[in-house]
Amino acid sequence: MTRSNDPAAAPRSDGHPGDGAVRGTQRMEIFADAVFAIAFTLPVVEFHVPEAGPDYAERLLALWPFYLGYLLAAIVIGIYWVHHHFSGAIYRTTGHHFLLATILFLIAIGFIAFPSRAFAEHIMDPEAREASAIFYVCALAATGATWLIKWKTGRWTGDVDERLDKAYVDRLDRKYVVTTALLVAAAALAFLSWPAGLALAALVTLSYLRAPETPVYVSEAPTVEGESDA
Amino acid sequence: MTRSNDPAAAPRSDGHPGDGAVRGTQRMEIFADAVFAIAFTLPVVEFHVPEAGPDYAERLLALWPFYLGYLLAAIVIGIYWVHHHFSGAIYRTTGHHFLLATILFLIAIGFIAFPSRAFAEHIMDPEAREASAIFYVCALAATGATWLIKWKTGRWTGDVDERLDKAYVDRLDRKYVVTTALLVAAAALAFLSWPAGLALAALVTLSYLRAPETPVYVSEAPTVEGESDA
Amino acid sequence: MTRSNDPAAAPRSDGHPGDGAVRGTQRMEIFADAVFAIAFTLPVVEFHVPEAGPDYAERLLALWPFYLGYLLAAIVIGIYWVHHHFSGAIYRTTGHHFLLATILFLIAIGFIAFPSRAFAEHIMDPEAREASAIFYVCALAATGATWLIKWKTGRWTGDVDERLDKAYVDRLDRKYVVTTALLVAAAALAFLSWPAGLALAALVTLSYLRAPETPVYVSEAPTVEGESDA
Amino acid sequence: MTRSNDPAAAPRSDGHPGDGAVRGTQRMEIFADAVFAIAFTLPVVEFHVPEAGPDYAERLLALWPFYLGYLLAAIVIGIYWVHHHFSGAIYRTTGHHFLLATILFLIAIGFIAFPSRAFAEHIMDPEAREASAIFYVCALAATGATWLIKWKTGRWTGDVDERLDKAYVDRLDRKYVVTTALLVAAAALAFLSWPAGLALAALVTLSYLRAPETPVYVSEAPTVEGESDA
Repeated sequence: MTRSNDPAAAPRSDGHPGDGAVRGTQRMEIFADAVFAIAFTLPVVEFHVPEAGPDYAERLLALWPFYLGYLLAAIVIGIYWVHHHFSGAIYRTTGHHFLLATILFLIAIGFIAFPSRAFAEHIMDPEAREASAIFYVCALAATGATWLIKWKTGRWTGDVDERLDKAYVDRLDRKYVVTTALLVAAAALAFLSWPAGLALAALVTLSYLRAPETPVYVSEAPTVEGESDA
Repeated sequence: MTRSNDPAAAPRSDGHPGDGAVRGTQRMEIFADAVFAIAFTLPVVEFHVPEAGPDYAERLLALWPFYLGYLLAAIVIGIYWVHHHFSGAIYRTTGHHFLLATILFLIAIGFIAFPSRAFAEHIMDPEAREASAIFYVCALAATGATWLIKWKTGRWTGDVDERLDKAYVDRLDRKYVVTTALLVAAAALAFLSWPAGLALAALVTLSYLRAPETPVYVSEAPTVEGESDA
Repeated sequence: MTRSNDPAAAPRSDGHPGDGAVRGTQRMEIFADAVFAIAFTLPVVEFHVPEAGPDYAERLLALWPFYLGYLLAAIVIGIYWVHHHFSGAIYRTTGHHFLLATILFLIAIGFIAFPSRAFAEHIMDPEAREASAIFYVCALAATGATWLIKWKTGRWTGDVDERLDKAYVDRLDRKYVVTTALLVAAAALAFLSWPAGLALAALVTLSYLRAPETPVYVSEAPTVEGESDA
Repeated sequence: MTRSNDPAAAPRSDGHPGDGAVRGTQRMEIFADAVFAIAFTLPVVEFHVPEAGPDYAERLLALWPFYLGYLLAAIVIGIYWVHHHFSGAIYRTTGHHFLLATILFLIAIGFIAFPSRAFAEHIMDPEAREASAIFYVCALAATGATWLIKWKTGRWTGDVDERLDKAYVDRLDRKYVVTTALLVAAAALAFLSWPAGLALAALVTLSYLRAPETPVYVSEAPTVEGESDA
């Protein structure tokens, strides 16, 4: 790359003025991945080995709501991770405000296992089910909202890769806005009918199991590591 | 590498159509390593410093089933990590469905310390031993199955390095299928005789302490980082 | 880079004598990011799913001081992470004493969630509020002091990037000294009036939400990963 | 680097036959750093916010043995991390058996916080002090032994960088052997006189606060990331 000896020159060679100290996405990804991994694995500390006894097998099986809580949290966090992984191909740099928005998103990711567990551990309990379902759907909506804030911040600060096709970015934008709107609607709906709100939130979340659209670049595709040189 | 300015061109220069947003293996490895590391270290939070007293030494020694649970979990997770490390030389890219299969495998890795502890902490208790041994062997079989699913997904999506010798890939495929079959057989056997099932599962797992076959490449070997340029 | 076959040559091509085994900043950043991420996420293990009951919603809401403790810790740790991320563009290498100073700083980061929680969980309790506010402000001051020690060590060992503009480094130096002085003053003030001490510490900490000054290099700007080659 | 199209060629361009699937040190370092970071931070989960009350300040201060346990563990783990960081400049590749030896070492690192806490939390208790000091010194000796095993394995498998000066490697070898011998002696001594054993182990451990000797290379120094290209 071209380098300048002029201290007044822009810190980035592509002429972007920057936002604080601008760096590539790798370090943000390492921190985010560590938070994802801890949030993903931490519910396991809630599994307590039961006392021994002639019905030990039943006691192990009776822990199924804890296993379910782990599973519910892992699926949601896993889906977000896969799309965060993918969106690492979407962002090109990380400036100060984008990192702050990432922190906000990661606060939600670190939190999400708790509502998952609060719902799963009392799923058979008619007294707690409605409140915990509402809590869970609201947390899913809040997490979706922080994702959208991160995306909008990245667009605003110019950290989204400017080599991406404009139509592609617009489709992504629309997708994220619609997703958040649907999750907020699910949260509102949950106060009227928790099964309906939960079903809508689950549907929206699980729709992300489908592969995302492959990024389209106008000028040049960034190198995919591991590719053939041929 | 060759780059195209054509937005309709394939996102990967090797002509692979991709699967969602395709990237190299590094970020998947960082996330996986973080999950491995947390699952590996987390059982230590179950060690509670005993009350002081004249028999403090005995109290520290009496925690040996907890130490054993940590050790059992660490050995299994360590073996999987070493082979996952190794298989990072086997995969070349990571697409959407391969990442989902990786999440499934990591859910099993995050879980495996619990059955290890449930078995080790009651290993001297005749009432709990059979149930916990069956639970442990079933968990080992389930983890093996998710490994196989990840591998089969990687082959199906084309994320396995296509430069590998076909015969080598076939040997690996056979090895993983046989391993999973034996672990499932061990789980079934454990219901008839838990010592037999446990012995078979332990044998199969510990057989992975042997060094894996060095990958064989048909066209060109990928660079081993740290090598001499000479 | 130029390489020497002379075993007596300086280990670094830029002639710096080194400090033990000198390496780039990446590995320090990976370890630091993992500590940041664990400290950031760990307070969530203190969230205990309440017992079910007709007032389950109230019970979930009654945990708000725990949520607040998580939030307070996450904001402080997040701000330090963003600036540590940024300062990764400020340091060029990591020698032995700089790593020891980094360990000291990370001990403070790993600890900071506890005073945050000790304050937040009793924020409504007149008996505990003063003591916990003082504890929290003192911990914030101690963390700031370890940051300053790390910075001063990096300057002393030559790990700060020598390509940076001298005036820029001096401004950074002044900023860190003033910040630590203000935090120590806040801690002293807290013993006289905890709301005043807390307000000052909060103000100083939150002032770091503003984007830092973009680094100015005298000779050449280091490559920003993700930039265009054009 | 030179690449061969011959599938029978050695997998490494430097002619080393390899040990299973050989890779560079980076991924081993990421996993190790995650384990280091978790072991480093995890004792904080043992800090429980005390009940509120008029003596809340005393209650927070009365937790000092817990703070001390965290500090003791963090210092030992920190010192090992700094030297592991450093030794990453010593190893060049990671083969199967070296990774297994690394797992053994990391099992010790993951464990070491427990004896640190078992000692610190009862440091004022005459009944528990001797037993816990012996436990702690034995754990330090065992950790030192796993470090030596890892080093000896690395030499045996050829993963130690062969560009290092032979005399330098021999000095390192002698240092690690002597350290382990002294720690084992300290453990034996602790059974006779725990203060003497503890003092010796502390002395040996803290001697690693000094900067290690800068690596000496016979042929060519590897690139230090972050260096000037000039």
